[in-house]
Amino acid sequence: MGKPLDEAGLDTIFRTARTYNGYTDQPVTEAEIRRIYDLLKMGPTSANQQPGRFVWCLSQEAKDTLADCAGGNNPDKIRAAPAAVVIGMDEDFHEELPWLFPHADAKSWFDGDPEGRKEHAFRNSSLQGAYFIIAARAVGLDTGPMSGFDHDKVNAAFFGDNPKVKANFISTLGHGDPSTIFDRSPRPDFDKFNTVR
Amino acid sequence: MGKPLDEAGLDTIFRTARTYNGYTDQPVTEAEIRRIYDLLKMGPTSANQQPGRFVWCLSQEAKDTLADCAGGNNPDKIRAAPAAVVIGMDEDFHEELPWLFPHADAKSWFDGDPEGRKEHAFRNSSLQGAYFIIAARAVGLDTGPMSGFDHDKVNAAFFGDNPKVKANFISTLGHGDPSTIFDRSPRPDFDKFNTVR
Repeated sequence: MGKPLDEAGLDTIFRTARTYNGYTDQPVTEAEIRRIYDLLKMGPTSANQQPGRFVWCLSQEAKDTLADCAGGNNPDKIRAAPAAVVIGMDEDFHEELPWLFPHADAKSWFDGDPEGRKEHAFRNSSLQGAYFIIAARAVGLDTGPMSGFDHDKVNAAFFGDNPKVKANFISTLGHGDPSTIFDRSPRPDFDKFNTVR
Repeated sequence: MGKPLDEAGLDTIFRTARTYNGYTDQPVTEAEIRRIYDLLKMGPTSANQQPGRFVWCLSQEAKDTLADCAGGNNPDKIRAAPAAVVIGMDEDFHEELPWLFPHADAKSWFDGDPEGRKEHAFRNSSLQGAYFIIAARAVGLDTGPMSGFDHDKVNAAFFGDNPKVKANFISTLGHGDPSTIFDRSPRPDFDKFNTVR
């Protein structure tokens, strides 16, 4: 058990943090990206699968490539953001389990079960996507996660050399500009979606 | 952008936090559960879908019911934990979008698309499951997430009155007992699963 976060910490990762549509001009550095990954990789995944595969787009060329795969208002947001990220998932993650999970022969649990691997890759890379959002906030950055994009196009543009890796979702990343956000959407009361037994 | 977390805060939510197999006798209270939910619900989901449906098992009867649905060593861990949680997902989440996402007619995006709803419910309830893990740690509790259980049995036992809600994963919850954890599994270097473009 760690020391509970203070009120400012809870604000930073959950309560006053927001999804941003635009950012200040302050760049995102590769050192910041490595710092985010070194935090998010500590978050738990089932049998330490770590199926998340991350492509960090810092160059305008990479952001433009991703923007060309996105729909609605997303292309403009991606082009203008200091950075963008593709959160991918490796559906052959089990090949890495002999070193990622040395306690047991976890690879054998997934050999010959491509449907099971897809489900685990999707669940656990989504967990890692959430850890990415929280880790970015924890180090003072902001995100703009999106699922409105052409998955086939992103897969071809970013994971064409490894067709077992598929895009899960994408996000912008930077120092959020408060003028670009809307009113916060309503949040449910506890009794709406929770049961205590 | 919030105030970055200090080193102790980063330890609490990521670096020294661990998945626990067992807990101290200190109970988990309903007030703590409400505090966790009030944090996790602030985490972003696509179009504020909030598909997560949480059943918090505090009674021995509820924990025993969940334990009877689990495999491997999981039943003993669940019976002995101060609390357990079923993280469910509502595949008809779109029915709630008129009030959860008042900015647009988001319900119409999902009407008549049950496969798209399943994908969004799975991705976004997984994000919420990760927010649950981080929120529990942030208030000084520990978790033991698990995906080794019989989904049909959990669905029947906990969501039998609403068959559009399905179990995503489950977790124990309490104040972790350090004697119950193993050495931490290896974490990848940045260059293993990341690309900068």
